[in-house]
Amino acid sequence: MTRFALTLEFDGGPFMGLQRQDHGPSVQQAVEEAAFRVTGEEVRMHAAGRTDSGVHALGMVAHIEVDKPFDAFRLMEALNHHLKPDPVAVLDCRVVADDWHARFSCIGRAYEYRIVNRRAPLTLDKGKAWAVTRPLDAEAMHRAAQALVGLHDFTTFRSVHCQAQSPVKTLDSLTVSRAGEQVIVRTAARSFLHHQVRSMVGTLALVGLGQWAEDDVAAALAAKDRAALGLNAPPDGLYFVRAVYPGDE
Amino acid sequence: MTRFALTLEFDGGPFMGLQRQDHGPSVQQAVEEAAFRVTGEEVRMHAAGRTDSGVHALGMVAHIEVDKPFDAFRLMEALNHHLKPDPVAVLDCRVVADDWHARFSCIGRAYEYRIVNRRAPLTLDKGKAWAVTRPLDAEAMHRAAQALVGLHDFTTFRSVHCQAQSPVKTLDSLTVSRAGEQVIVRTAARSFLHHQVRSMVGTLALVGLGQWAEDDVAAALAAKDRAALGLNAPPDGLYFVRAVYPGDE
Repeated sequence: MTRFALTLEFDGGPFMGLQRQDHGPSVQQAVEEAAFRVTGEEVRMHAAGRTDSGVHALGMVAHIEVDKPFDAFRLMEALNHHLKPDPVAVLDCRVVADDWHARFSCIGRAYEYRIVNRRAPLTLDKGKAWAVTRPLDAEAMHRAAQALVGLHDFTTFRSVHCQAQSPVKTLDSLTVSRAGEQVIVRTAARSFLHHQVRSMVGTLALVGLGQWAEDDVAAALAAKDRAALGLNAPPDGLYFVRAVYPGDE
Repeated sequence: MTRFALTLEFDGGPFMGLQRQDHGPSVQQAVEEAAFRVTGEEVRMHAAGRTDSGVHALGMVAHIEVDKPFDAFRLMEALNHHLKPDPVAVLDCRVVADDWHARFSCIGRAYEYRIVNRRAPLTLDKGKAWAVTRPLDAEAMHRAAQALVGLHDFTTFRSVHCQAQSPVKTLDSLTVSRAGEQVIVRTAARSFLHHQVRSMVGTLALVGLGQWAEDDVAAALAAKDRAALGLNAPPDGLYFVRAVYPGDE
């Protein structure tokens, strides 16, 4: 039995989410079926994060266990071959220790959220960004975001379906910057609550539009009440960028 | 009668090309039909360039003439409304002089070609870049490209279907640079022959792969023979970036 860590890139558009679902295709199902075609074994995939329908990944990390001996590079190539035409690719594959776990060993997660801020509808970026047509003040969004950094009770920014035991999390960073018509939100933490990133981005967008004052974000956080949430940003703009493990630089 | 210049962004994937075709959808048809729904007039669109099936645009320039009086901003908004769900967007719309012509007044055109250079298949960039799986030496490609800059007979790099009167063109710039797994080719000229950019990129890729020596590019150009061409790069990676007119900065 060998455990392999996989780095996955995927377009979340055609999937019901990363995790297996009864009612539609998932990234997990795509990878497990490809692994079955490669190995002939019923393989179970475990991932660092659980992304929703429509959410993308540039560097999701997962692991699988395989009985038959496989070279890591050949396993990656074979998985990629069998994953076609699904928009899921294995960017990296390496052998890890039997007690290494993609989810439980993970000590850091980073997301990026892409907004295209212009009047015209999206063409090449359709499904890959949130189109906000009225002007956003990215600097005001960045300033307001700093109230969320640190150790807080994030109940306001948590889905009612969130299964985490505690709403208390430490947010390591949350930045907002503009590059032309793109407004990019970047955030990192040990872990996030369900819908936390989309809830934070949607609320910051209200600040960017001038509908909320910058201080209103701190007040919404302090309210510890989902009803105080501004807005949940759509999944299209969200990318799981990176998972960090002990020993990574 | 008012003439409007339109700046268009489009995903070339679902189209048979920019120009109207008998056998399938085109960007021209999409814009002309949207203009008919907005104005009730049979509008004819003229564009700075003629892109092939699958080729994209970040800033194609075109013009249309409308009888009824329209404010440029409202015309843009109405066109964008009626262009949905086609992946074509009007980024800018302005009134121009009656003798201004998107194609004949154009004095400069710029293209970008995106290669993703990695083992894994494309997911988010599927249809938006050329996937080259073996390592490319972008610096060698850049050096070899310089032989094509300047005034030359580009017969080698011209489609057999090219309708230009002369194969002699001045190439203003051709650069190749790498950013991580992306290799980007940028080029500008007053005008290009049919398939010229894809022919140049495909041939430079052979240099990048080590199958051609850098000097072979100059020799292929000197041969003035389509049979001397290395390879035609696929349309997926090609973007029409910009059209330049007298008076533009």
